[in-house]
Parts: sequence; C-alpha cells; structure tokens
Amino acid sequence: MIKNIITISREFGSGGRSVGQKVAERLQIEYYDKDIIRQAAEESGLGEKYVEEYGEFSPSADRFAYNFVDLIEEGTSPLIKLWQVRKKVIRELADKGPCVIVGVGADYILKDRPDCLKVFLFADEETKKKRISELFEDADLKVRNRIHNMDIRRKINYEFFTGQEWGKAQNYDLAINSGTIGYDRCVDIIVDAAGRSE
Amino acid sequence: MIKNIITISREFGSGGRSVGQKVAERLQIEYYDKDIIRQAAEESGLGEKYVEEYGEFSPSADRFAYNFVDLIEEGTSPLIKLWQVRKKVIRELADKGPCVIVGVGADYILKDRPDCLKVFLFADEETKKKRISELFEDADLKVRNRIHNMDIRRKINYEFFTGQEWGKAQNYDLAINSGTIGYDRCVDIIVDAAGRSE
Repeated sequence: MIKNIITISREFGSGGRSVGQKVAERLQIEYYDKDIIRQAAEESGLGEKYVEEYGEFSPSADRFAYNFVDLIEEGTSPLIKLWQVRKKVIRELADKGPCVIVGVGADYILKDRPDCLKVFLFADEETKKKRISELFEDADLKVRNRIHNMDIRRKINYEFFTGQEWGKAQNYDLAINSGTIGYDRCVDIIVDAAGRSE
Repeated sequence: MIKNIITISREFGSGGRSVGQKVAERLQIEYYDKDIIRQAAEESGLGEKYVEEYGEFSPSADRFAYNFVDLIEEGTSPLIKLWQVRKKVIRELADKGPCVIVGVGADYILKDRPDCLKVFLFADEETKKKRISELFEDADLKVRNRIHNMDIRRKINYEFFTGQEWGKAQNYDLAINSGTIGYDRCVDIIVDAAGRSE
C-alpha cells in the first residue's frame, strides 16, 4: 500500500528533522514539525511561548506529576488541552494531503490510518553527541541542560499521552539506526518503504 | 560503508527465512541458517538431533534454570558448548565472504564487525499467525505447541547467551515490520541498506 503520511519519531541528535525534510523534498510532499506547534498555539490561545515550553521540550518529571494532579483535581490541564489541540491539527493536516511529520506524537495520533508509515530514527550516543554539539555550538548553559534531558522529556511526554513505550520497534513500521546506516541512506530507505513514485 | 554480512533476527512467522533467502539471491551472496546448526553438530560431536532440540528450539524456562545450574556447578553445559561451537562456526563463515545469516544469534556474535548489517524483522500477531498456519498446516500437536512458544524460547535463549534484550530496536541497524511493509519491500530495503551494488 502506498503511504501518504510519513511520521518520523526520533532520538535527539539522530538527524530526524534533516532526514524528514529530505524525504519530503524527494517525494515532493509537505513537511511539518514546529509549524504544528505554532498552529496549535494560535488555535488554542495558549500563547506560542507556552506551547514551545510545554510542547517541544515537554514535561519534566516534576511537571509530569504536577500536571497529572491538575488533571485529576480540575478535570483539565493546559498540557492536556495542548494535546487535544495538537491531535486536531495533525489529523486535519494529514487529511489535507501527503506529508512528512517529524515528532509531536504524530505516529500515535495517526496510528489508525493504514496509509501512515511510522518511522523511528535512533543512533548511538557518540553519533548523537557529535551532531548535537555541531547544532548547538554556541548554546548557553540553560539550553545545554535542556538538550541533555531532551530524550528523557520526550519519552515521558510520549508515554504520558500515548500509554505506549517510546522507541519500541514494535510500535513502528521501520526503526533505523542513522549512526550506522547514514543520513542519506535513511532517506533512501524511507522513500522506498513509502512506496510512492518519486 | 558496504556491509558484507547481513544478519536477520526475526519473530517467528515474520518471514525472516524467506526474506533472507531473497536478499542473498539479489546480492548473489551466501545464505546460512540451519546449515550452521548442522555444521555445529558435526564439529561438536553433540549429535544433530540434540543440536536441533537445544539449538533451534532453544531452552524452555525450565531448561534455562537447569542448564544455568549445570554451568555454575560443573563449569560446562552442553548448551554452553553448543554456543561456543556456534560462535566459532559463524565467525569462520563470516570470514569466508559476504553472506546473509538468519537467526542463531549471529547479530550478537558478529557485533564487533563494522561491515555487519544487523536487521530485526517483526510483524503483528495476525500476520504471523496466518503465515505460521500456512507453513505448518499439517503439523501434529507436539509441533504446534512448540510453534506456539517459539518466540518465548528464542527470547530466553538469546538473552541468556547475549545479555541483550531480544528485539530491542537499539540493538540493530534496522528493524522492519514485515506485516505492514510487505516481504518484497523488506528485501528492497535490506538490499538498499547493505549498500552493495546488485
């Protein structure tokens, strides 16, 4: 079956965004990542800064507990609201036409679409550290600390909302080690797996 | 880097042997699976029947405990001996030239070779059940019971000898869901990832 939607979940530093952009270019389809966050912010009225904070960098362990209490006691939480808005936005984008979506839990949100190819990109620690230090060469200490905990935050966030284990091969169609396979070949493989003519 | 050795670990019923054979045909390289077991049997003098029993179908939970006690108290176990022989055989075969090796823990045994592409094939329960019932249509009850527990046995066996989690994406270069991707496209993807000209 031809895959219209390609979701790419990824460990931080495994090149997910770059690979995703190249896949979209090769297939001449739309590419989304931060745009979804921005659109979610506009629709929800939560404010872009807030959504960046809680959406991209996701809840830390402390925030996780805090927000969970929020949810139980008041029935709502800004984080839950963001997730609901995000689900709506992603489903609408997927309905609009073929696209690549990097991160934002899109694999789970679109899991019932048979035309969705779910990819997980990962890499060994050395490869990821090298890439992260290239990307964030001039980052200050605060950003560096966030980067350090990025995968932990992503994992907590993903598992909180989806109830699934983040990065478990069986939750995806394809899991690729970009460190050993190389970014360009990752692009080839994903394009091939999508079954769309270029 | 061009990959000379392709190891395929697989859930039972995910089509690993068939995909492996096709990859070897496409790349015109050697294919091994049961041959290794047979060769191990010949070299070890353990007898082919014994090796089939303990090598292919691997230790059950009871046997696991039993053999572990053997190892502690006597310093040897037929199962450990088989593993040592198997490691030797697989390393020698890999040194002989490019090949595809399905199962038998080859991914772990050859993990230090940078020219080894480690693939894990899996599938949803429905796809696997369909394939297994096609393959073992006329099997008797004893065989059916063994089939039922095959993945559990493989998992116990693999984790006992390697200390690694069986089927965890991060232990492989590539993990593919053959149920959603399809067998032919699995072959394409593995051939592509190997980086060898056809």
